Amino acid sequence: MKRYQALADDIAASIRDGLLRPGQRLPSVRRTSTARGVSPATVFQAYYLLEARGLVRSRARSGYYVSSAPPALPPEPDAASQPDGESRPVDVSELVFEVLESAMARDVVPLGSAFPSPQLFPLRKLGRAMASAAVHLDPWSTVDELTPGKVALRRQIALRYRIDGLQVGADAIVITNGALEALNLCVTALTQPGDAVLVESPCFYATLQSLERHGLRAIEVPTHPRDGIDLDAMDAAIGRHRPKACWLMTNFQNPLGSAMPDEKKRALVERLTRHGVPLIEDDVYGELYFGERRPTPAKAYDRDGLVMHCASFSKTLAPGYRIGWVAPGRYLREVARAKLTATLSTCVPAQLALADYLAQGGYDRHLRRLRTALLAQQGQYLEAVARHFPEGTRVTRPAGGYFLWIELPEGADALRVYRQAADMGISIAPGPMFSVRRGFGHCLRLNCGHPLDERVEAALATLGRLAAASAGIA
Amino acid sequence: MKRYQALADDIAASIRDGLLRPGQRLPSVRRTSTARGVSPATVFQAYYLLEARGLVRSRARSGYYVSSAPPALPPEPDAASQPDGESRPVDVSELVFEVLESAMARDVVPLGSAFPSPQLFPLRKLGRAMASAAVHLDPWSTVDELTPGKVALRRQIALRYRIDGLQVGADAIVITNGALEALNLCVTALTQPGDAVLVESPCFYATLQSLERHGLRAIEVPTHPRDGIDLDAMDAAIGRHRPKACWLMTNFQNPLGSAMPDEKKRALVERLTRHGVPLIEDDVYGELYFGERRPTPAKAYDRDGLVMHCASFSKTLAPGYRIGWVAPGRYLREVARAKLTATLSTCVPAQLALADYLAQGGYDRHLRRLRTALLAQQGQYLEAVARHFPEGTRVTRPAGGYFLWIELPEGADALRVYRQAADMGISIAPGPMFSVRRGFGHCLRLNCGHPLDERVEAALATLGRLAAASAGIA
Repeated sequence: MKRYQALADDIAASIRDGLLRPGQRLPSVRRTSTARGVSPATVFQAYYLLEARGLVRSRARSGYYVSSAPPALPPEPDAASQPDGESRPVDVSELVFEVLESAMARDVVPLGSAFPSPQLFPLRKLGRAMASAAVHLDPWSTVDELTPGKVALRRQIALRYRIDGLQVGADAIVITNGALEALNLCVTALTQPGDAVLVESPCFYATLQSLERHGLRAIEVPTHPRDGIDLDAMDAAIGRHRPKACWLMTNFQNPLGSAMPDEKKRALVERLTRHGVPLIEDDVYGELYFGERRPTPAKAYDRDGLVMHCASFSKTLAPGYRIGWVAPGRYLREVARAKLTATLSTCVPAQLALADYLAQGGYDRHLRRLRTALLAQQGQYLEAVARHFPEGTRVTRPAGGYFLWIELPEGADALRVYRQAADMGISIAPGPMFSVRRGFGHCLRLNCGHPLDERVEAALATLGRLAAASAGIA
Repeated sequence: MKRYQALADDIAASIRDGLLRPGQRLPSVRRTSTARGVSPATVFQAYYLLEARGLVRSRARSGYYVSSAPPALPPEPDAASQPDGESRPVDVSELVFEVLESAMARDVVPLGSAFPSPQLFPLRKLGRAMASAAVHLDPWSTVDELTPGKVALRRQIALRYRIDGLQVGADAIVITNGALEALNLCVTALTQPGDAVLVESPCFYATLQSLERHGLRAIEVPTHPRDGIDLDAMDAAIGRHRPKACWLMTNFQNPLGSAMPDEKKRALVERLTRHGVPLIEDDVYGELYFGERRPTPAKAYDRDGLVMHCASFSKTLAPGYRIGWVAPGRYLREVARAKLTATLSTCVPAQLALADYLAQGGYDRHLRRLRTALLAQQGQYLEAVARHFPEGTRVTRPAGGYFLWIELPEGADALRVYRQAADMGISIAPGPMFSVRRGFGHCLRLNCGHPLDERVEAALATLGRLAAASAGIA
């Protein structure tokens, strides 16, 4: 983060905490410059940024004043989705590829990106662990433990499971090329082409791509933006379609940000166990909680080995290292064999580097900092949405992760907003990406994993205007 | 390599070159010790090893003498395989998994392994490149160029193509998690479940696993141990079965070691182009040639973008890094998208490390050393097979790579030899692993990628005895 952004965030926090009150004058640029030991230019930039965020206003020849009141936030979405309960072959990929390809350039404002800012991660410290692992690599370690992955890393992951109250041994884990491979291996282990899989509605587009790749049918189940999938609807869909698996994100679901309460997770596992339907649990955001403690994975309630818990370090520690894993329960053998025939093994020095980093300690300290940053950014983005988006907009307040799910007013067309924004160098993720029915035409997902600087603020203002125009609001 | 092994190899070379002649006495241990600047114990070990290899004999109280003549090598296999031309669903995996799992322990003699000794690779120098790449990682490099892979590495690969006379630009390459992922992506891009693919007979078991994983049928085509697939038989199979792809290893095929001459490759591509059948070219051993220059990939003759050239650094430079690639010709878009949905991206620091190593130069020097070592080892293994295997054995002399294909005498059962050897801590790769028909029941593949020390020599002697017993030879 740049110096002026840090300063602006500090002042914003003082405003939120009431240390600076509405109408109060900010200290002069010179005084702040002296007090903080930064240049006057930096202070100016910080004040401009606060003004862009609507937190302060400038008065000619008089300085900057705290705005009278922060804008009220738009209401939350308050109803579960209502998919039609049909089973469908999956064919979403063209749209998804188009959106992903348009979002990947460095100069695009990455509101549609699936990644938080890479500057939030301890890449230098990790780099030193990687340096040590690579220079001291035991040659024989390149040919043993190939398919399950390095036992040193599996032990560290098992230790984290233990701390979270789960009994998952190192031998019950397979290391993968990111969580995406883990999830694909679960699908490979459980299904044959033509089978059906239950998913949330909306669900992560990579889930749909995976099902399409495997020639599967998807059944969207009603899902609430706060607490996730509707269990009764799930029961009914299982009875009707006899799916081979249920694929859910239990914690801070992408795109909704929904999190299933612990009791609901317990009930979920009980019901799936009764039906004999395995759960593919995608839990890549669980560590990014804003509350007191990590939300439990559904895996914690699994007695029969039916929950295949998939996670990774890509969103929490080591973007670009591509290290994920799966604890596949009773399907361990099938998953290990699928891994062997898919990619054989995962980059050995990267595995050893992460094992070494985790063994040194420091991961939890980093996670605390990361969560604090993401929570602060969520607040800033919510306020920016309040400032810029039209009346009738709804937006989620997830208790973790870095996505906001926005319902635009009736009549707005998220795909049209997406296309217009793309032409202006702004990426968003339109709702229909997240549905096999192409539902959620008036919704979009915003990434708030990047610091809210002027460029992002301006992009959000543009999006708000495009959304209003699309909804026919002047 | 240990010091005594290097000394033994030197002396063996002198014997082969005629500098030491049959019947001649070796210098005394003391003299060699002084001349070479090594300990007497090292010289003793070297002489023991030469004796174990049958190159010298000891006479009581008199010293070591060069054996009267090196044993004549067994003849080469001299006929192409004769599969029945049927198209079959693939179901080889149980046997293959069993063999691979039994071969993976560190204490097993790795004659069935698919990897050469990891000590043949510059892992420390690579480690330093990795250290630098990881410590200086640009955070944004973890989120851009995700799916095709880092352009710095793709440029280095394109440069090597250019040196070998191929026009393949950096933009025409997708980086993968080893060649295995590259090959799987090609299959995903080209086929639907139930389609048929042409393969060699015998063919690499991972090919069969990939076809099984994708729900495909395999058609084995007659293949000669010296020059590869029979083009007329291929034509006939294409006419009969209308396969969606042809998957071949054109250079130093695994397991045969066969290499298609350039003119044959040109004809191969012409014929496939006429049929409109794409070629998945698995070329992971092409750099391991013993001749004057790298054998040309079939890709060199491709005018229509129908050849998908797959390779990796796993066997030539960087085992365990899991960096491969594919130049998929006209299927670039389909392959890139398949990569995105399979594993999204490949470990970024590992890609940058290899790009850096390649840019520094030194890869070709390493390759020259590696080829020299592999050629020397092939000679030693061939002589050991001559010493220990029964009359009627045939063995290939590949012009590159590190596999020998052995035809045991009529009546021998390679699966039985494999099981008996496994119980004694020796791994081999029995012929039926390499065939969808479970053919090649009297054949086996030997890995000569590990230095031939006493333990390997003893293992080869054991294998020879087991083979003789299995063939009913006293």
